[in-house]
Amino acid sequence: MRHIVLDELPGRPCPAAAALELVGERWSLLVVRELSFGKTRFGDIVRGTGAPRDRVSARLRSLEEAGVVERTAYQDSPVRWDYRLTDAGRDLVPVLDALVTWGRRHAVAEAQ
Amino acid sequence: MRHIVLDELPGRPCPAAAALELVGERWSLLVVRELSFGKTRFGDIVRGTGAPRDRVSARLRSLEEAGVVERTAYQDSPVRWDYRLTDAGRDLVPVLDALVTWGRRHAVAEAQ
Repeated sequence: MRHIVLDELPGRPCPAAAALELVGERWSLLVVRELSFGKTRFGDIVRGTGAPRDRVSARLRSLEEAGVVERTAYQDSPVRWDYRLTDAGRDLVPVLDALVTWGRRHAVAEAQ
Repeated sequence: MRHIVLDELPGRPCPAAAALELVGERWSLLVVRELSFGKTRFGDIVRGTGAPRDRVSARLRSLEEAGVVERTAYQDSPVRWDYRLTDAGRDLVPVLDALVTWGRRHAVAEAQ
């Protein structure tokens, strides 16, 4: 599983920077959001995030390497995968919650 | 000030996606972290983040557009700027705190 050595970070040796190194990409966090909503299928994750399919595919792989996502085959020939959050992945929900709170207050246009 | 219309987001119309659209870039959040530590000078922000100077410069501009950062001149000819968080910027501290918590638990290599 991929982990970050704090002293190898370019700036301040800070756990937030380590976290962002692993999951700090917009599509990564939105993939985690879809999984936290119980979406397990690739197509649903693509629809929910609105990201290009190849981007979602790359993010799922890096989230798997980071120990945030695990996949299991639900069908053979052709093999099809279900994606789920690990315990480490579920621990990201407070990050998403904090983003929702901030987004509601400061990012969303008034007119809605 | 830049705001996001939820219905114009590519995927699910969600405030977290809107937040990530404005501040969801690794260097952006690390710039906010440096400012939250009271670093106000460009050089200190570059050092703290470990990001390339031109990247920090671009991120400060987009954070300013998002209403997260404000700058004031502290010197004329040549003009030099101080950067500070706005109220909206300080409201991002819980996002950073959540990332620190997650990073400590799941992103940082054991050996440290």
